[in-house]
Amino acid sequence: MTELEKLFNRIVQRVNINLRELNFDVSPFAVELIPPDQLNKFYAFYGITPDHPLDLHFEHSALAGSYFLGKCRVRNSLLYKSDIRGDELKRKDQQIQFEKFTLTLTKDEIIDIEDSALVKTLVHNYSHDPETPEKFYIKDTLAMDYANIHGSPSDGSFLGPYATVDLTTMRDCVIGAYSYIQAGEISHLKVDPGTIWVNSPGNFNFFYKYPAELLEHYVSLSPDKVPWGILIDFIEERKMEFQRVFDFVNLQEIESIPKTASLDRYAVVLPNIRIADNVLVSQRAYIQNSSLGKGANAQENCFIINSSLEGYNVTAHGAKLIEADLKLGVFVGFNSFLCGKKNSRLTVNEGCVVMPHTIIDIDQPLEIPADHLVWGLVRNKEDLAKNSIALVKLNAVETSISLGRMHFEGKGAMFVKAFKDRIHHILDVNGAFFENGKNAGHAQKNQRLSLNTIQPFQFGANKGMYPNIRILP
Amino acid sequence: MTELEKLFNRIVQRVNINLRELNFDVSPFAVELIPPDQLNKFYAFYGITPDHPLDLHFEHSALAGSYFLGKCRVRNSLLYKSDIRGDELKRKDQQIQFEKFTLTLTKDEIIDIEDSALVKTLVHNYSHDPETPEKFYIKDTLAMDYANIHGSPSDGSFLGPYATVDLTTMRDCVIGAYSYIQAGEISHLKVDPGTIWVNSPGNFNFFYKYPAELLEHYVSLSPDKVPWGILIDFIEERKMEFQRVFDFVNLQEIESIPKTASLDRYAVVLPNIRIADNVLVSQRAYIQNSSLGKGANAQENCFIINSSLEGYNVTAHGAKLIEADLKLGVFVGFNSFLCGKKNSRLTVNEGCVVMPHTIIDIDQPLEIPADHLVWGLVRNKEDLAKNSIALVKLNAVETSISLGRMHFEGKGAMFVKAFKDRIHHILDVNGAFFENGKNAGHAQKNQRLSLNTIQPFQFGANKGMYPNIRILP
Repeated sequence: MTELEKLFNRIVQRVNINLRELNFDVSPFAVELIPPDQLNKFYAFYGITPDHPLDLHFEHSALAGSYFLGKCRVRNSLLYKSDIRGDELKRKDQQIQFEKFTLTLTKDEIIDIEDSALVKTLVHNYSHDPETPEKFYIKDTLAMDYANIHGSPSDGSFLGPYATVDLTTMRDCVIGAYSYIQAGEISHLKVDPGTIWVNSPGNFNFFYKYPAELLEHYVSLSPDKVPWGILIDFIEERKMEFQRVFDFVNLQEIESIPKTASLDRYAVVLPNIRIADNVLVSQRAYIQNSSLGKGANAQENCFIINSSLEGYNVTAHGAKLIEADLKLGVFVGFNSFLCGKKNSRLTVNEGCVVMPHTIIDIDQPLEIPADHLVWGLVRNKEDLAKNSIALVKLNAVETSISLGRMHFEGKGAMFVKAFKDRIHHILDVNGAFFENGKNAGHAQKNQRLSLNTIQPFQFGANKGMYPNIRILP
Repeated sequence: MTELEKLFNRIVQRVNINLRELNFDVSPFAVELIPPDQLNKFYAFYGITPDHPLDLHFEHSALAGSYFLGKCRVRNSLLYKSDIRGDELKRKDQQIQFEKFTLTLTKDEIIDIEDSALVKTLVHNYSHDPETPEKFYIKDTLAMDYANIHGSPSDGSFLGPYATVDLTTMRDCVIGAYSYIQAGEISHLKVDPGTIWVNSPGNFNFFYKYPAELLEHYVSLSPDKVPWGILIDFIEERKMEFQRVFDFVNLQEIESIPKTASLDRYAVVLPNIRIADNVLVSQRAYIQNSSLGKGANAQENCFIINSSLEGYNVTAHGAKLIEADLKLGVFVGFNSFLCGKKNSRLTVNEGCVVMPHTIIDIDQPLEIPADHLVWGLVRNKEDLAKNSIALVKLNAVETSISLGRMHFEGKGAMFVKAFKDRIHHILDVNGAFFENGKNAGHAQKNQRLSLNTIQPFQFGANKGMYPNIRILP
């Protein structure tokens, strides 16, 4: 047995031990998870900037195609084409307010991944767990394709494909495919596929669940099979374009990018695109025949095809926009799939909030009125009526409201404010409001980012594993 | 002042302190030595193979374009496009016979470079100093373009361009441009440019010195100037071809290479070439329109252009062959420049030994008879008569012989045997005699070599410096 196989078996065993009470066995899902002959083919890389502390420590791990930025330690783990982006980690001496507690950090926060396997997973933001403010840990965890572990420490958990856990600490949980969870802290929970759950105890609780028989067309998972569905096929069909950007040491620079914008060297950019001031295009984003207006951002793993974004738009990690026109300030959450067609374009008007993990898949033109919240599965006007609400109406909710398969409890105003504040924060940190040298964010700072590569063993029992490497300034 | 400038100034100061008794100031030579804006442009790389222990440690150093293989530590040093190749370092428990002493190594030997600047310098082989069998050290040393530090620990020394120190420990020495020294141990010695000196005390002593006014056409050095001359121009004219091989992550594999031969991924190969069994082409070798017969090897920094090598030929580090036909078993030593012309080809017959640092530059066809030793500057038949001797004749020398500017003392037979033994050893370790799975050497083992890259800081005070990196298996 190779070191890689031993390592993977050990991780699977550790996840299973943690999930024994839920009676969940990850082994059958893990069988086809990572093709071992792929692991020595891809280099990993790390970013160096003057703005982030450099401290990387890789030990007995496989890192194929993964990206690291900021302080990070990886031990006994298998990361496959994952993004471990610690550029928003908290810093030494920073103060964090959590309810009545003021926490002062004794050292820089570090992402610490141990005994885990992450596939095409985005790990980002800072740990929102007040119990371990200096460590964003991920241990005994298995995350599948295009999962997002976003500011969410994890211990003993399984995330299905396209699952997102956001600002939530999880322990011994199973998160179903295409589920989005933002709930502060969860443990010993098995979440069904396609669950959209935003819970702020005492304030509000948003809940929606996709109809299983409809969700399975988009993303499905069953034992002993690789994940399948429209979302998987969509990416598979475009993966050759990514190969090209990883094959060249120096790509020709794309002209006509404003000085205030940044386009990552590992993004795919196909004709014709227009990029305005303060735009951020992150690595592994895919932009084709589209226009990105001032302050728009295209985050990791997102796709923007035949679309126009008027400005100050957030296209979050893994979101996909096809044949869509987004007006000013439209937010599209994690892993959403907004799929217009050539003669059936989607228009999303100013100020709309498209919830994370929303699927809009239309065969007739569709227009979403300004300042609406949209969620779940929308295939036509009838679906839209049951899966959207005017923000002003939600704002007025005092106790609860139900609409279609969605149920909301608590203060609508707090929910809307929380979302709007977060969107403003995202635009701000990404540099959308940069003006006259002020309010610089990722779009401006990333111009001073260099990407360095690290490579795996090519031969012998260690084939596909990486050397033990420590990198300091 | 940037970190890079501070580092360089500190190295220059340390070398000068060591050379104070020789009254030699390296500062004027160092001014143009390394263009600081080049140092962040080139990545460094290291080889990983199942055959060599992996232990690399880089600390507060710049490594632009340098290559590492085997155990190596680099501290407070500036390596620019240098080859630090520890693949022949001694191993733990290995026994070394030195005169009456049998030395047993307590640990693997390591190359340890500290407070030194090496430019396009080859550091290779194992330390031949019995005093420090586990450490091949280079400290307080400045080596210029295409110097070779070959199995030669160095402390407080300066090597001019194209200088070679071979199997010799040096302390507080100045080695002039294009000098070749093989003398066991030297200290506080200032060696004039173009000195060829092979000394085995009590056994033999070979001495030749180039006429200064002729050598300066080929390679010259004076304060405040970059080195110049035909040898420098020759490489400058070909450097664009090297750019290409460093710009691609994956180059297309060249077909028609036998399974028993190896062609380094960082070699330049231009049409049309023929490569036979057991051939080794090392990194940064340059091969164009030439044929390499069975067991021939083309070592680092060598150029082979419009030439044919019949087989079992050694083209040592930095040697250049242009319009030349080499018969079986011809050896061409370090940095030799064998320059035939299109209508004035050079023929070197079977069994000839071309001494290191030999220049043959002809405008009429020239043929060197079989089994001859050749040295120094040869421009025509008259020069050849004064700069060559039949091996059988040298073999018979008992006390001394002088010929032209060459003077030999001691036992000719011992000199010839030492050379022939060494040539056999070089062919052997390079895999020239591989047959039926036996006698494998570099040519066969290098097929299981992967090259990994490391990159410098691109911004800020550390621009051009490399992160501190430790790499272990």
